[in-house]
Amino acid sequence: MAKKEEEVKLLGFWGSPFSRRVEMALKLKGVPYEYLEQDIVDKSPLLLQLNPVYKKVPVLVHNGKVLAESHLILEYIDQTWKNNPILPQDPYEKAMAFFWAKFVDEQVGPASFRPVVKAEKGIEVAIKEARELITFLEKEITGKDFFGGKTIGFLDMVAGSLIPFCLARGWEGIGVDVIPEEIFPELNRWIKNLLEIEIVVECIPNREKQIEHMKKVAQRVKSA
Amino acid sequence: MAKKEEEVKLLGFWGSPFSRRVEMALKLKGVPYEYLEQDIVDKSPLLLQLNPVYKKVPVLVHNGKVLAESHLILEYIDQTWKNNPILPQDPYEKAMAFFWAKFVDEQVGPASFRPVVKAEKGIEVAIKEARELITFLEKEITGKDFFGGKTIGFLDMVAGSLIPFCLARGWEGIGVDVIPEEIFPELNRWIKNLLEIEIVVECIPNREKQIEHMKKVAQRVKSA
Repeated sequence: MAKKEEEVKLLGFWGSPFSRRVEMALKLKGVPYEYLEQDIVDKSPLLLQLNPVYKKVPVLVHNGKVLAESHLILEYIDQTWKNNPILPQDPYEKAMAFFWAKFVDEQVGPASFRPVVKAEKGIEVAIKEARELITFLEKEITGKDFFGGKTIGFLDMVAGSLIPFCLARGWEGIGVDVIPEEIFPELNRWIKNLLEIEIVVECIPNREKQIEHMKKVAQRVKSA
Repeated sequence: MAKKEEEVKLLGFWGSPFSRRVEMALKLKGVPYEYLEQDIVDKSPLLLQLNPVYKKVPVLVHNGKVLAESHLILEYIDQTWKNNPILPQDPYEKAMAFFWAKFVDEQVGPASFRPVVKAEKGIEVAIKEARELITFLEKEITGKDFFGGKTIGFLDMVAGSLIPFCLARGWEGIGVDVIPEEIFPELNRWIKNLLEIEIVVECIPNREKQIEHMKKVAQRVKSA
């Protein structure tokens, strides 16, 4: 639990998996925090000042220390508040959790926009490409309750904020179930496990609002 | 030092800053390793088998455990062989070292190819964009011997393998000094400090060969 007089602020955006996962970690650790919702298009002077390199959410401010990048924030939270650990102690297991987290954000994440960005190639090609990436994760979760083992951990927060509540919704917007149970039974089992955890449910964005948001983001990605 | 009977193999490529920095860390720790030079175009079955996700060097194999991605490998090495630590103990300082390492690889790294990739915008624009990115690092190193403090550390290995011996050489190929001393006095001082360290000097690729290699890579990046 946070000590008295600690200042914890989070600059976030309701529809961002990157800031939602940080909220999951703070909630799991029981750290009280002040949440500052940001406009991700018309950016606030505070956001530009605190994250001059990327100008993006999430940004964590802890007792004056400013930190950006969700993976780094999650590890910092885990090392600062040691109850309910989210990262493995074993150096190799920890490295592999980060390896797959990077894969989720850098490879699988952009597949959320494939139906829009790669529309010219045909929707079937876009679906195939997205599912090929997701298949790596299906293999990783096979036989486990969570990526972290018996309970929610770092990689569950990274993949959990992104896959069911961001990527899948990007595809729902065009009427496609990109992670159907027939093809990804293990990931669907994992999503059900996630939905039994209160701190996850608290961090799920509104479905209709998220689908509309994903359409707008995809258009921005396409025209960038 | 490595214990007897430990197996440490590194799949690398002579011209890759990502594998050169791993060699720096292994040398600094005094870990004996078997180096397996890879063809990065016509990839070996071993590389494809060990890194099926990215199919890239570096890959570290330690007693059968396989790990890719240079930042993760460096941290794993630091946690496995604890002599000559390369990462800060303090959680915030460590997060910031990773923050800048990510910036080096994801933002500054691609600027190595700007003279070729952005040639249509004019070389002056490409120089300006690259220097704007490098200015963030000039500010970070100001007043310090190394990014890590008094001696070489994680961020020095990441930035040291990339900036003077990869990025700068990409620009040398078209006759441009992208990091001149007048504009970047602090970074140039840091490069001189690096060049006094034997394990760094051992890991510097041949200049002419590297310049030619960077030209080829830039052409591949451009036509991708």
